Amino acid sequence: MNQGPTEREGESAEPLRYLSKLEAVAIETELLKDYRFGKQQLIEIWGHACAIAIVKAFPLSSLGKRQPTVLVVCGPGQNGCIGLVCARHLRIFEYAPTIFYPKRSSDSLNQDLMVQCERMDIPSLSYLPTEVQLLNDAYNLVVDAVLGPEADPAELGEPHAGILLTLKQVKIPIASLDMPSGWEVEGDNADGINPEVLISLIAPKKCAVGFSGKHYLAGRFLPFDIQRKYELNLPEYSGTDCLVEL
Amino acid sequence: MNQGPTEREGESAEPLRYLSKLEAVAIETELLKDYRFGKQQLIEIWGHACAIAIVKAFPLSSLGKRQPTVLVVCGPGQNGCIGLVCARHLRIFEYAPTIFYPKRSSDSLNQDLMVQCERMDIPSLSYLPTEVQLLNDAYNLVVDAVLGPEADPAELGEPHAGILLTLKQVKIPIASLDMPSGWEVEGDNADGINPEVLISLIAPKKCAVGFSGKHYLAGRFLPFDIQRKYELNLPEYSGTDCLVEL
Repeated sequence: MNQGPTEREGESAEPLRYLSKLEAVAIETELLKDYRFGKQQLIEIWGHACAIAIVKAFPLSSLGKRQPTVLVVCGPGQNGCIGLVCARHLRIFEYAPTIFYPKRSSDSLNQDLMVQCERMDIPSLSYLPTEVQLLNDAYNLVVDAVLGPEADPAELGEPHAGILLTLKQVKIPIASLDMPSGWEVEGDNADGINPEVLISLIAPKKCAVGFSGKHYLAGRFLPFDIQRKYELNLPEYSGTDCLVEL
Repeated sequence: MNQGPTEREGESAEPLRYLSKLEAVAIETELLKDYRFGKQQLIEIWGHACAIAIVKAFPLSSLGKRQPTVLVVCGPGQNGCIGLVCARHLRIFEYAPTIFYPKRSSDSLNQDLMVQCERMDIPSLSYLPTEVQLLNDAYNLVVDAVLGPEADPAELGEPHAGILLTLKQVKIPIASLDMPSGWEVEGDNADGINPEVLISLIAPKKCAVGFSGKHYLAGRFLPFDIQRKYELNLPEYSGTDCLVEL
């Protein structure tokens, strides 16, 4: 069972696995319950890795606007928390993130992550302009941290349904965290938002099979046993990199 | 007050600050209380950065033994927790860490971090051989995660006093996390352990002023306001690197 540590592990010539919604939820539950990872710990790992992916996809030197502005749109759940951590690390990487986080959870983890951003002078918008030209003019890109695979887009209420409508119209690039918000994990998403960059966490979801933009797998911490159990066939990371382009 | 994000921040021609014990404790308290960082979050950031520093100082290809073995010696407090996270990431980077963690805290954070290691098949020693030749033969290096700056070496009891005696005699290199265990933050440490590598967190401590080994500063997340308030004059990190060699 236990392979020697000098062999490469979790690596295979088999094709990369794309996760169903049930599988994505099952893996995360296993990490939290059996491996006793903390939510705070996972969200920090993921948010940090997402920020590095964004730097890779949109280096400071490539940004067209005078200021390295980034709008980070955060949803009410875990995807939004990852967005908050991502914004904080983008600030450390000398970007100028602005947060839009309209429906704030009363959960202490969400609140703590928001305080960290506020104390680091990251501004937040009180509302999202519906005039998309304002967004196109003000920001170099949008980070979509609205909904993750655990969310049900069919049950999406306001303000998030309106936010997705706005994101469908913006002309600046969108980078989606884990999956494009509003997409069904296993459905037809021709009518959804259209990100240029997708940063998959744990493993890509089924909806990403035909994704034609830049696609990263980020967050390198997944126990080898889980990789094997779910036959993820993850690609090999280079050196100590925490992400790999798919 | 708030510098524009296009200017480089937290950077200066002033000399790097070496922290007193009081300053090190004050900064961490401020991160936890005012910035609302979680302990789990900070320990994950630090342990991950320490693992990357160890990979940089001791690349897999440089190791003399047949297996990429590393002994990670963890103390009872926060330094030990950072060691557990470091061991886990070393495993992900395809090293073969073994943990020695003789005095386990009943704190749930410590326990969770240990379960993460156990579930990732990282073995742990039930006792540390006093015959140092056994250690020299079995491991490529020792990671010293016994005591951090908050500890008082004068009050050190068993088994840690004995562990430090053993570490003084080993011939394989030692990499110390945050500061060499058993050293006084501000004292004379000529009689202490003699690490080849030191991985300072937040900022180096006063005891590291004359350190002649390889010295890294690791963990890139410190709010710019804290860097300014304590006049840390941290060096510039490259790209998205989470460490810099001093």
